[in-house]
Amino acid sequence: MTSSTPASGNSGAARPGGRSARVRAQVLEATGRRLVEQGYDALTVDSVAEAAGVHRTTVYRRWRDVGGLLADLLEAAADDSWRPADTGSLEGDLTAMNQEILAAVAAEPSLTTALIAASFRSPEAARALRAFWEDRYARSAEAVTRAVDRGEVPPGTAPRPLLVAATAPLYQELVLLGSAPDPALPGAAARAAALAAAAGAFTAPAAERG
Amino acid sequence: MTSSTPASGNSGAARPGGRSARVRAQVLEATGRRLVEQGYDALTVDSVAEAAGVHRTTVYRRWRDVGGLLADLLEAAADDSWRPADTGSLEGDLTAMNQEILAAVAAEPSLTTALIAASFRSPEAARALRAFWEDRYARSAEAVTRAVDRGEVPPGTAPRPLLVAATAPLYQELVLLGSAPDPALPGAAARAAALAAAAGAFTAPAAERG
Repeated sequence: MTSSTPASGNSGAARPGGRSARVRAQVLEATGRRLVEQGYDALTVDSVAEAAGVHRTTVYRRWRDVGGLLADLLEAAADDSWRPADTGSLEGDLTAMNQEILAAVAAEPSLTTALIAASFRSPEAARALRAFWEDRYARSAEAVTRAVDRGEVPPGTAPRPLLVAATAPLYQELVLLGSAPDPALPGAAARAAALAAAAGAFTAPAAERG
Repeated sequence: MTSSTPASGNSGAARPGGRSARVRAQVLEATGRRLVEQGYDALTVDSVAEAAGVHRTTVYRRWRDVGGLLADLLEAAADDSWRPADTGSLEGDLTAMNQEILAAVAAEPSLTTALIAASFRSPEAARALRAFWEDRYARSAEAVTRAVDRGEVPPGTAPRPLLVAATAPLYQELVLLGSAPDPALPGAAARAAALAAAAGAFTAPAAERG
């Protein structure tokens, strides 16, 4: 599964590999399943090993603790070929990203929301989640480059703050405010960010330019 | 203390009142202090009662449990006279809001961040935090009304999505991504939202207009 959010815990399953890759896929799938079903507090190495049908010593040796399991779950989720949609317009590309975020965060249960919650408990999960998001921002920069090339936004438009502006309202509404998922939100947030970008909101201030 | 975030746990202390108001102020101050110092897991009614110097039976009777304490802490924080700054421009007013958010979230320790973390553990804290934010959005709407009156943004500009767009990047960067506080962020996020608003990003689509 490809996504702009860590919605899938079993990316490893699709990869070629021998017994080690299979064990990893089983353990990470069990980690994600137990996290969404029972929450962070119920997540133990022993319970994951049992749910995965893998010897607990194997899990302790390879992942050490719950933080290690969550970090590897996020690393596996990032180990895919995700690229932003190329719809022909910046607003369209950002809307597609936001639709993926809406789907992942509004899923019941939502692995994405469970991982965000876990990031407040486990420093390793927090670091891994941030690395996942930074990787997604970096990959999504091509949508901004295309918009510059098409003349939709000014040269020098910085991708990262534009991508944060486009996507942050989704996390604010759905994760922090717990609002009911609004199918118009992905497009509305995308449109606002694209309009701001076109007006030069994300180019460096004149004083900082060349 | 007035703030656009629940940064203060002792608003009750400033209110007139007799013994009951004093007990509430003491208990809520102790709740906030223990939450930021030791985290949600260490927060118990007994430990709060001890830290507040109040009999535990009093705390159980009035607040019932940790969720009740956190919800009342947020209610007390909302019980103030906060209004958005009136700087003469929408960008200025939004920047002032974002500077308050940056100060509250980047404080060490940060009660705001601790309450957001607690909202993932306690449904009562989550409901109270959402009510706090909705109250702040409602009060901040006057900054948008002023911008409409000045002709900075089109008539029909909806305050809430504009306010979410202006402030969400702060929570995304500082709380969810754990980025180092950037003193330019409050103004940059405010400017982007103001430019989007001026371009009509937050007016209802034509089909929905009367």
